[in-house]
Amino acid sequence: MSATALLLIDLQKAFEFGEMGPRNNPDAEKNGARLIAGFRDAGLLVTHVKHDSVTPGSPLRLGLPGNDVMDYARPVAGEPAFAKSVNSAFIGTGLEATLRENGIDHLVVAGATTVHCVSTSVRMAQNLGFAVTLAEDACFSNDWTGPDGTVYLARTLHEVEVAVLSGEFCEVLGVDEILNRHT
Amino acid sequence: MSATALLLIDLQKAFEFGEMGPRNNPDAEKNGARLIAGFRDAGLLVTHVKHDSVTPGSPLRLGLPGNDVMDYARPVAGEPAFAKSVNSAFIGTGLEATLRENGIDHLVVAGATTVHCVSTSVRMAQNLGFAVTLAEDACFSNDWTGPDGTVYLARTLHEVEVAVLSGEFCEVLGVDEILNRHT
Repeated sequence: MSATALLLIDLQKAFEFGEMGPRNNPDAEKNGARLIAGFRDAGLLVTHVKHDSVTPGSPLRLGLPGNDVMDYARPVAGEPAFAKSVNSAFIGTGLEATLRENGIDHLVVAGATTVHCVSTSVRMAQNLGFAVTLAEDACFSNDWTGPDGTVYLARTLHEVEVAVLSGEFCEVLGVDEILNRHT
Repeated sequence: MSATALLLIDLQKAFEFGEMGPRNNPDAEKNGARLIAGFRDAGLLVTHVKHDSVTPGSPLRLGLPGNDVMDYARPVAGEPAFAKSVNSAFIGTGLEATLRENGIDHLVVAGATTVHCVSTSVRMAQNLGFAVTLAEDACFSNDWTGPDGTVYLARTLHEVEVAVLSGEFCEVLGVDEILNRHT
């Protein structure tokens, strides 16, 4: 028997405020909202992880407005919600135990950023034995500067990271197809 | 006090034989050999992880010639060596315990592939609290096909993944600079 849960990662207002830099996929919120509504309507487990940064100057530090979860992605009563201070949703949180207790063996993942916390969490989830579906159009990244000073655009980073994850760590699907299959 | 160890990932003959597809950075072996020699000469810990694939048809399955570690990267007596069957060098192995027992708080990472097992291990190492330096010119990737059938060249994947890791999970340096600093 297979049980699917949704995992939402770092959908926090710093990204809405533009405090993390230029991003791709402005439709991520709209797509993510449909995904959340579909899972809730189907009675599937929705789990949440947010980032309480411990990096000086980060807009994601606890207590700052940017740390707040975006309105559309806020947990409702009964939904497991965890805080982390590293990229992986599985390190320093009770997420894995909660998923096991609920018999979850398949995770649908959406959130931010594709290349950092989403990728790290997808990789670790698969390596821990969960099947993973990446809701590609409900994720986004920010521009990022490489070690030689080259600035990589969010759209490029997102696209390449999704390709790298695909087939090795997860299946990559859009929200429409995920809702068709699971709700 | 800080202690540095080298972590070599999946330097196995399937990559030498071309069984994993076209790759970038043909100098990775030459650079890696200098890195290993420098660490051994300086008396620093050299640790090894190889991949025993459980995927049907993989050239990295235990018992196949492609599973063997490349000659230049073979462990010598006393060097901790682990086998894994997922991407992360830290899942299902004794690597973390061995590093902690040896007082290691900084890892220099080299190996294959940049985007899969190296990236996953670098991400998890940093998230577990280790400082990480990626020996970029002693790593390589293979071409990879994205979810829409687009083929991404190894060189592009390697470059973008190194950029994504840089600053968030590790410092990116070449072998020359690493040897200057640590040996």
